[in-house]
Amino acid sequence: MDYKANLHKMLKPRSVAIIGASRNPGKVGNVILNNYLDGGYDGKLYPVNRNADMVSGLKAYKSVLDIHSSIDLAVIAIPAEFVPAAMEECGKAKVKNIVVVSGGFAEVGATELQDKMVNIANKYKIPTLGPNCLGVMDPRARSDTMFLPTYKLSKPKIGGVSFVSQSGAVGSTVLDMIAKEGFGLSKFISYGNAAHIDEVDIIDYLMHDEETKVIVMYIEGVKHGREFFEIARKATLKKPIVVIKGGQTAAGAQAASSHTASLAGSYESYDAMFRQAGFSIAKDLSELVYLAKIFASEPLPNGKRVAVITNGGGTGVLTTDAISANGLDVAEYSEQTKKELRKCMPSIVNIRNPLDMAGDADSKRYSDAMSAISKDPNIDMLIVITLFQTPGADSSVAAKLISYKSAMDKPMIVISTGSDYTEMHKIMMESTGLPVYDSPNAAARSLAELLKYAQYRNAYSKK
Amino acid sequence: MDYKANLHKMLKPRSVAIIGASRNPGKVGNVILNNYLDGGYDGKLYPVNRNADMVSGLKAYKSVLDIHSSIDLAVIAIPAEFVPAAMEECGKAKVKNIVVVSGGFAEVGATELQDKMVNIANKYKIPTLGPNCLGVMDPRARSDTMFLPTYKLSKPKIGGVSFVSQSGAVGSTVLDMIAKEGFGLSKFISYGNAAHIDEVDIIDYLMHDEETKVIVMYIEGVKHGREFFEIARKATLKKPIVVIKGGQTAAGAQAASSHTASLAGSYESYDAMFRQAGFSIAKDLSELVYLAKIFASEPLPNGKRVAVITNGGGTGVLTTDAISANGLDVAEYSEQTKKELRKCMPSIVNIRNPLDMAGDADSKRYSDAMSAISKDPNIDMLIVITLFQTPGADSSVAAKLISYKSAMDKPMIVISTGSDYTEMHKIMMESTGLPVYDSPNAAARSLAELLKYAQYRNAYSKK
Repeated sequence: MDYKANLHKMLKPRSVAIIGASRNPGKVGNVILNNYLDGGYDGKLYPVNRNADMVSGLKAYKSVLDIHSSIDLAVIAIPAEFVPAAMEECGKAKVKNIVVVSGGFAEVGATELQDKMVNIANKYKIPTLGPNCLGVMDPRARSDTMFLPTYKLSKPKIGGVSFVSQSGAVGSTVLDMIAKEGFGLSKFISYGNAAHIDEVDIIDYLMHDEETKVIVMYIEGVKHGREFFEIARKATLKKPIVVIKGGQTAAGAQAASSHTASLAGSYESYDAMFRQAGFSIAKDLSELVYLAKIFASEPLPNGKRVAVITNGGGTGVLTTDAISANGLDVAEYSEQTKKELRKCMPSIVNIRNPLDMAGDADSKRYSDAMSAISKDPNIDMLIVITLFQTPGADSSVAAKLISYKSAMDKPMIVISTGSDYTEMHKIMMESTGLPVYDSPNAAARSLAELLKYAQYRNAYSKK
Repeated sequence: MDYKANLHKMLKPRSVAIIGASRNPGKVGNVILNNYLDGGYDGKLYPVNRNADMVSGLKAYKSVLDIHSSIDLAVIAIPAEFVPAAMEECGKAKVKNIVVVSGGFAEVGATELQDKMVNIANKYKIPTLGPNCLGVMDPRARSDTMFLPTYKLSKPKIGGVSFVSQSGAVGSTVLDMIAKEGFGLSKFISYGNAAHIDEVDIIDYLMHDEETKVIVMYIEGVKHGREFFEIARKATLKKPIVVIKGGQTAAGAQAASSHTASLAGSYESYDAMFRQAGFSIAKDLSELVYLAKIFASEPLPNGKRVAVITNGGGTGVLTTDAISANGLDVAEYSEQTKKELRKCMPSIVNIRNPLDMAGDADSKRYSDAMSAISKDPNIDMLIVITLFQTPGADSSVAAKLISYKSAMDKPMIVISTGSDYTEMHKIMMESTGLPVYDSPNAAARSLAELLKYAQYRNAYSKK
């Protein structure tokens, strides 16, 4: 985009026109309108449909020009060839923002049609998202332009993570994954071909958005590399950015070009830029989710010494491996901690880190260990392994951990691996802000990225 | 173990004595007995308890010597100091196998007590598993010596994967993870300190076991390196072995030594041995599970050319990246396939690999694509991405994929990422033997390991 625009009303519109609001269930425009109705949106809704007087119980308009009211957001869901004309009408009606969900532009070679779209957006100075995208979602504003059936997709809770995705498919699957996690969503922005609004505009908005604590991005290609780098460097001094790049390999880059018409470029240069800008780089979607989780809940650590307490020896061994492999240190307890642990642990427990409390560890033993370890000045971060398959582990252990967490000023995370009974306790702990990881590697890698970001902030904030 | 023994009756006992079968709910011996009763075990059960006449409604015996019947398996769950005496009685009573679940031996420095145990096992030639272990489970035989409360742990279905774990904690969490997967369990063997029966004996048994298609192992240390290597090389010519090593780093190795008294040794030498023996090496527990999954269901591929069909462009891009990063090739369609696809795909679909069929792809489009691609001789393996969040994807797509899978002689797997609606379809597909992966990396890495194993088999079977 050539000028700076405030995306606030695009994300929190008080009035939405849906151009192409069909009466036909399953059609994109119909799904979008009904998602607004079912989602409890309490602003004004204007279906626009040339051939109907009413859609889903609402008065329909032939054109946005017939609405004669202020429109914060027009969502356009009609065949590509009709989009420019609809945008002209939006311009004349002084619509404040446009989201074009329709595909059929540069990604299929129709670059002229896309240029035409951009010219109209510039002429009327209307920030326009898309085309070829899912649009925006803001759970606080109950605004959601995604044309996906709600029963197929669990929606995340309200929270501090904003997720920006060039791909609609990746966007919707990650949202669905996030719904299973304890952290919630601030904004979702799917920007497709980035014809007008691009990643630079979006970061510029989100870095100042107080509801956004963490920015998470799926990027296939960046249009304005220099501007992107500049804004990204400023943003990471305010909040963490986690990124995954589509098109990391030659074959992947080729696939990306036919997907969002992106010039994926060499991954090495992206990778270098991301690192210099202080991004956390995810290699897989599951990594994207678990890195978002650590940044959403944990304070930044002061050092790399990790303590591990566990009720499963083998998982303690694997976690120790993961800590070392990720460049962190296995902490050495202070003499005071050793003394306290010797006093309260049964004789079969070796007083060392990781502290293997054995399979019969119950909430009393967890509590004793937490009490000794949590205040040790030689420890920067804490991993608590709780395998809920064991005889001693139950909800009272989870409750104890939650209460210690609330008093901790260091990063503290849990590893629990398993099925239904474990999942229940994960929900319990995460709902209070105690993040739970299902594998030693995910846990250690997340802490390592948290530390890296802390060091980046320390190094560059002072300059 | 110094002699070769048949573990068949340990895993499929027709009569089980539980030494230490307490009347006290929650006590290890009580949990084991009740798990046999609740699990529908239909062999003979003999509780052994010095202080009770009845336990859980069964006649109890003061000693195994009082039973006067053939005993296939004695499970010993009493304090360590009393174990040798109980084993002596087992010897005199001609018990055929022993599992010592009790801890308190070499792992806490009590090596003499452990040596005493081993001497008795050798004197009477009774194959003895443990100590410090969870013992064995065979879902076909409904035999299960694990002392874990059943409500905390989902149990896997019956299937072809045998899981051997030196750690009980890792064992139980992996079993719980496997319960969510479509593939089932043949045997579970937790062998703890490996004082008598060790990994060599176990592989020797499982490689000949017809119910076992895949062997999966968690190992902290191997006692007899040479013998292990020899038996492992023979075993991998019959069936795949997937392994994860605890104690890969110096810090992890130290943790392992206080866990199962294992000399973890240098990981480099283990890694080299595992590779030479044709193992698939997992780096994390989740990898262990998804590698087990591919070997449990898929035929070995003839080459490395992968075709991808998708209803989500971005996930197609990430999958292409993952294919390249894992050393596989993005297949080039035959002319015949291109012709067929051009005929049946809508004009917006680029006829290339990955085939991005767009977000409105329904079962008809999936079926058309499968029909053209599945018989292409230029394709060795097939990844079908089905994002169930999209408008066109529903159970009829899953049903179509299942029917194509049943006629395929090449590896074919699905990537579906998401929450409840996706999970439902995963269960549907996996129950018919169509494996579903939740990430591009997991899918591509699994296919790459499958190919590596195929190449190993090809290279060494001929020698």
